[in-house]
Amino acid sequence: MTEEVVFLDDGFVPLASATVSIFDRGFLFADGVYEVAAVLDGELVDLDAHLLRLERSAKEIALGLPMSRDAFGATLRELVTRTGTTEGMVYLQVTRGATPARDFAFPAPSANVRPTVVAFAQTFPIVRSAKGTKGVAIVTVPEVRWKRRDIKSVALLGQVLARQAAVEKGAAEAFFVDEDDTITEGAASNAYIVKDGVLVTRPLGWDILHGTTRARVLEIARARGMCVDERAFTRDELAAADEVFYTGAAAFVVPAVAVDGHVIGDGAPGPITRALREAYIHAVRGPRSELR
Amino acid sequence: MTEEVVFLDDGFVPLASATVSIFDRGFLFADGVYEVAAVLDGELVDLDAHLLRLERSAKEIALGLPMSRDAFGATLRELVTRTGTTEGMVYLQVTRGATPARDFAFPAPSANVRPTVVAFAQTFPIVRSAKGTKGVAIVTVPEVRWKRRDIKSVALLGQVLARQAAVEKGAAEAFFVDEDDTITEGAASNAYIVKDGVLVTRPLGWDILHGTTRARVLEIARARGMCVDERAFTRDELAAADEVFYTGAAAFVVPAVAVDGHVIGDGAPGPITRALREAYIHAVRGPRSELR
Repeated sequence: MTEEVVFLDDGFVPLASATVSIFDRGFLFADGVYEVAAVLDGELVDLDAHLLRLERSAKEIALGLPMSRDAFGATLRELVTRTGTTEGMVYLQVTRGATPARDFAFPAPSANVRPTVVAFAQTFPIVRSAKGTKGVAIVTVPEVRWKRRDIKSVALLGQVLARQAAVEKGAAEAFFVDEDDTITEGAASNAYIVKDGVLVTRPLGWDILHGTTRARVLEIARARGMCVDERAFTRDELAAADEVFYTGAAAFVVPAVAVDGHVIGDGAPGPITRALREAYIHAVRGPRSELR
Repeated sequence: MTEEVVFLDDGFVPLASATVSIFDRGFLFADGVYEVAAVLDGELVDLDAHLLRLERSAKEIALGLPMSRDAFGATLRELVTRTGTTEGMVYLQVTRGATPARDFAFPAPSANVRPTVVAFAQTFPIVRSAKGTKGVAIVTVPEVRWKRRDIKSVALLGQVLARQAAVEKGAAEAFFVDEDDTITEGAASNAYIVKDGVLVTRPLGWDILHGTTRARVLEIARARGMCVDERAFTRDELAAADEVFYTGAAAFVVPAVAVDGHVIGDGAPGPITRALREAYIHAVRGPRSELR
């Protein structure tokens, strides 16, 4: 028996009746943070890392979370069970709540405004997705976003416009190109190239999201003896790469076989990308995996 | 008889029951645009300019508005009447609507997703506000926002954090300082200095919101024979200014009498700022004013 439910504030409610006030600061100001965690074989992937990152994002915008890490974890696990999700994602969002008057500044502590908590599940294929197995086309777009991309906030309009630009060109993802011609990351992913056997990806900082999948993939690459170079790479390097891929919590490792209409390598997912994707899936699925 | 109502999608509903789906793209992605127009003496100020700017913002993010300019205007006028608002503001927000699945890309046209329309009114003093008459302290904060500040989108987290930083220092507004040390604008306002009788404010472009009040104030200043210099000014110029002020649709002209704890002039609203504020209010109130 599966239910069409979402979690809202303090309990599960039918999906169709899940609403928030129009005065919710998430709706009026994008004043909130979120996480996406994959579900595979009915289990949450890397849950602790996601909840730790949620706490970090919330702290960076001085948003006090209304639930403990354990309570969030139990809620998301119950969500997976009740919705019968076996493969896909859970989405968790916390905003600074609803106030009767619109004011940019935070509500006063004395107002006791409770943050809004929303969580829902979605089902889609990840392991056997066409994108992951056959590869995708990507495009590049100018970097226009705010400077704190390490904060996983819902102020995502820049990402929305980038992804839409990709879709309109028949591509699956857009990589942002900064003013200095380096790639920062994808609209909803971290970006990588492989050149002469070296895996290159931008180092952590304010420029990019600190991807949970990124951390695991670099760990796996290093454990396999690969040379990993954490540095910014340019658009020219992207075009001349042997392999290009991106990672995201609900996509895992996705090969990019064309960039801006230019074919990468022989137009098929490269051997290193495929190996990393398989190794990541294996690590997530491993019976004693610590990623669960 | 006044009612506690807001406008939602296609009609007026009680304020307390005004909600949107948790899948609304305004809530999940900040995928929406908005306007704020002042209400003075029960009349909307500069309504046409606000609705034109809404159309421009929507066009820039490829959001098809579900109502004509006339229909928006009639709705906002009815909102003012029904709520009995005599002084304060009306707020109008349009988002790309709610879809059953979270996806960064726009919903397909075939899905016929209707944009969400929300409008509400708030009452507060503008003409006799303490801020406007006595002046305020402001602070400067680093510019971290995205590059398209000409689009009045609800992706306002950077503005929220800036305004909160101001409030925590006992100030009313924060001016953003760009990497080249110039002031862009305030968290929810356009920024100005007066030096040796010259009014200086940043020229229009992607850097700043194209303020409706800014347009009127510059028109008034020029009509009064003032020298207006539309150019970027630096943080040092701000600190050394004879007068500092900001403008916003629901604040009109607000004198800043201290910047980062440093007193401007003699610590009271300067004569040019006061004259512009009075002239703006007079223009808005004038019986044959075209600002209504």
